[in-house]
Amino acid sequence: MRIDVNSDLGESFGRWELGDDAAMLPVITSANVACGFHAGDPSVLRSTCEQAVRNGVAIGAQVGYRDLAGFGRRFIDVAPHDLTNDVLYQLGALEAMAHTAGDRIRYVKPHGALYNAVVNHGEQAAAVVRAVQLYNPALPVLGLPGSEWLRHAAEAGIPTVREAFADRAYTPEGTLVPRQEPGAVLHDAEHIAQRCLTMARGEQVTAVDGSRLRIAADSLCVHGDSPGAVTIARTVVRRLRSDGVELEPFTTPGRRE
Amino acid sequence: MRIDVNSDLGESFGRWELGDDAAMLPVITSANVACGFHAGDPSVLRSTCEQAVRNGVAIGAQVGYRDLAGFGRRFIDVAPHDLTNDVLYQLGALEAMAHTAGDRIRYVKPHGALYNAVVNHGEQAAAVVRAVQLYNPALPVLGLPGSEWLRHAAEAGIPTVREAFADRAYTPEGTLVPRQEPGAVLHDAEHIAQRCLTMARGEQVTAVDGSRLRIAADSLCVHGDSPGAVTIARTVVRRLRSDGVELEPFTTPGRRE
Amino acid sequence: MRIDVNSDLGESFGRWELGDDAAMLPVITSANVACGFHAGDPSVLRSTCEQAVRNGVAIGAQVGYRDLAGFGRRFIDVAPHDLTNDVLYQLGALEAMAHTAGDRIRYVKPHGALYNAVVNHGEQAAAVVRAVQLYNPALPVLGLPGSEWLRHAAEAGIPTVREAFADRAYTPEGTLVPRQEPGAVLHDAEHIAQRCLTMARGEQVTAVDGSRLRIAADSLCVHGDSPGAVTIARTVVRRLRSDGVELEPFTTPGRRE
Amino acid sequence: MRIDVNSDLGESFGRWELGDDAAMLPVITSANVACGFHAGDPSVLRSTCEQAVRNGVAIGAQVGYRDLAGFGRRFIDVAPHDLTNDVLYQLGALEAMAHTAGDRIRYVKPHGALYNAVVNHGEQAAAVVRAVQLYNPALPVLGLPGSEWLRHAAEAGIPTVREAFADRAYTPEGTLVPRQEPGAVLHDAEHIAQRCLTMARGEQVTAVDGSRLRIAADSLCVHGDSPGAVTIARTVVRRLRSDGVELEPFTTPGRRE
Repeated sequence: MRIDVNSDLGESFGRWELGDDAAMLPVITSANVACGFHAGDPSVLRSTCEQAVRNGVAIGAQVGYRDLAGFGRRFIDVAPHDLTNDVLYQLGALEAMAHTAGDRIRYVKPHGALYNAVVNHGEQAAAVVRAVQLYNPALPVLGLPGSEWLRHAAEAGIPTVREAFADRAYTPEGTLVPRQEPGAVLHDAEHIAQRCLTMARGEQVTAVDGSRLRIAADSLCVHGDSPGAVTIARTVVRRLRSDGVELEPFTTPGRRE
Repeated sequence: MRIDVNSDLGESFGRWELGDDAAMLPVITSANVACGFHAGDPSVLRSTCEQAVRNGVAIGAQVGYRDLAGFGRRFIDVAPHDLTNDVLYQLGALEAMAHTAGDRIRYVKPHGALYNAVVNHGEQAAAVVRAVQLYNPALPVLGLPGSEWLRHAAEAGIPTVREAFADRAYTPEGTLVPRQEPGAVLHDAEHIAQRCLTMARGEQVTAVDGSRLRIAADSLCVHGDSPGAVTIARTVVRRLRSDGVELEPFTTPGRRE
Repeated sequence: MRIDVNSDLGESFGRWELGDDAAMLPVITSANVACGFHAGDPSVLRSTCEQAVRNGVAIGAQVGYRDLAGFGRRFIDVAPHDLTNDVLYQLGALEAMAHTAGDRIRYVKPHGALYNAVVNHGEQAAAVVRAVQLYNPALPVLGLPGSEWLRHAAEAGIPTVREAFADRAYTPEGTLVPRQEPGAVLHDAEHIAQRCLTMARGEQVTAVDGSRLRIAADSLCVHGDSPGAVTIARTVVRRLRSDGVELEPFTTPGRRE
Repeated sequence: MRIDVNSDLGESFGRWELGDDAAMLPVITSANVACGFHAGDPSVLRSTCEQAVRNGVAIGAQVGYRDLAGFGRRFIDVAPHDLTNDVLYQLGALEAMAHTAGDRIRYVKPHGALYNAVVNHGEQAAAVVRAVQLYNPALPVLGLPGSEWLRHAAEAGIPTVREAFADRAYTPEGTLVPRQEPGAVLHDAEHIAQRCLTMARGEQVTAVDGSRLRIAADSLCVHGDSPGAVTIARTVVRRLRSDGVELEPFTTPGRRE
């Protein structure tokens, strides 16, 4: 049994530090590296790519809206053509850093409000897919099962990778319980770790209403932007390994036959 | 006899248009395309690259300081390590656009205050050269003969290309007469065209003090950011062609043996 | 009979020029001056305020989303608290320029996508109103009749000023025909001028479907971002004056009793 | 005996937090609040002003270069006219926040590279002074004794306030030992506190070479951007108070007769 563990990295900017990338890199197998539009200046991006390579972690491009002040967390009604080009720009910029670090971009994952938008916003989903298609249609895209993003990508012949969230509750339908609702975010590290193990094994987990459902996931998303988050991530990974789940980037040759 | 003619393009940003790229592309052989730090949003850059490819014009990366408000025309005392990474980021970003247009970046030329800085500022010159070296040491760099920029590049084994300015007066030592001095900028299209022809032939031109000097140049820089500038550029190119000078990007295989 | 004529000014940014402010200032009575978030750098804003004062034109703050790349024309889902503060920041910044020019801000008008948002988006409308209330509740706000923006402002005891668009077609309900629909934008200068005169007199104009309606307006909005637009603005103003309509800022003491 | 204690605040930006403002406000008497150009988004600035008012701390405008990526720590060769306007813009923006918090800007202090520039760079010093003069010539300016900044301000009739640095070594001539030299930054809290007490009393302190000198200071600058810095600031203030030095903003009426 194998699974990938992904997390957001490279989110510092200039004088401002965010996240403990050094603590997360030994824990994860795929790094969603910011590309400078919502976070990450060029020196941060290069250093993050170099550390990822040293840790054998796959570099993913975490593309976002052009909105440093909002950290890419505010929906922006960008015209599809411009969104495609904003994503192309970010892919190329991060590629130069990955290349300098001796590797290349291995996958694409939208960030924040763009991640949420492309779940349902067909035009923006298609615009981001179009960028991947123009850039490199062999590049896998990572996202929410059932999203417009993965649907458009699949139609375009782009490899799709489904992710589950380690610390989020699910509805019986398999969608995320919105953050503002009670019980939406899980906090107990051991509980989360057990849940991740269950998902990695392809077994059923408990939805927010107590019913049971199966979450099909190729990758588990963990957070690292607080000391508590790092602890959870470590607990999850330790548990997976001790129960015989191999952690491996979804992009390794052995995995993507 | 052959020479290259280069000009700055892709300098619009969002709602703001600058320069008449459509008028310049049939005139020039190399386009110094902005990379988003001093000018050029992603949609502008992609469109400029596509137009350059359609016109058979070589795409160069015109890297600059991160300063939209100052259009890259203000010296910024960026630390060398950060400058290297700022340039890498820009190269990658423009590469994605050139790639989407069916081509790739063919050379690198600094813009504005960075162009001026790397004439004498050894540390910044070395920092930009370092970026080219990390990115692709086979990529030629375009600049002022005698500059630290070309000197560092040559030492690093990077191909160097010397440029002359069509509409600028030279000192007897072969440096540019500073813009604020009388006679620094030439305005008469026919006079400029004759001068360019003389330079293209490798013959002596008249310096600002009346003495004669030879400007070794592989490329002529013309401007296109005003109707008058476009007229001058057209006059120069017509004159060169009518007198048997072939216009050709310095990066074509036939030229770079 | 009196009416105000307003137009967007101060929309250049750094090297990029936009609009012919010098041509528009003798034509209009109120200048919607950009505040730096969607357009307008500090030197542009100061110079625009100084020119407005010299021409006896009232200075209005045209506040917008923080989005230079999008020129404030893309909806951004800013949290209301942040939007209030973004507007406060812009009001203060422009006030310093108006003060330096010997005057002060006379009114507030949202720009672009924010203008459109506050027509129906109650939360954002309330957020911008809240900023005006905190800053100076005596400051009139300019907007579309029937908008949430004017409704919230009125409830907060802020003076409201209704505007009509010189060159736009109206539905029978008095809303603007969307730009993408046929006939949405009027182009004939004489026709527009006649229509403006009719509106200034409080008489009925023809809606897009041929029916008649009365547009209650304290101010007419004209554009100046193209040579054609300047011509229309001049024609409108000449017509109004020749038919005895006095042009006067809505903010003058005589008008706001 | 009285002295002022100032520190940099409001330096967070969007998602990125910096400094422990809540811990510093009870310690200091004057807050150098960022104005959005090098740090500080509008919501941060407003909240900082509100907290300053609640703590009875004077609000100063810490104006900087337009350079978020560089945190205002890189010299930018801004033209004097533009620098004046950049400062005016920042003053107005912060004023709106201070006003909303129920107070107003009490003084002006340049930040980072601009602080260092105006020590010797006459043109930039004069440009910032010009902004204060246009904005409000009664507003005191805070800076390094002997700087061009204070000299130009004094010539313009603007009140000048001299500051000393709690944790920096001085040369025998009374200038700061450059950061990169050994012994430039002091680390021992008790030693720093004793030194501050000595300066507050107007007595001689020891220069880096062992000689003795008197540092004339109206205000002591302390840092708060790390847990260690907050501890030092608290130790300094406790020591001053326990030895009978009153801490008071330099801008209070009682002090500025």
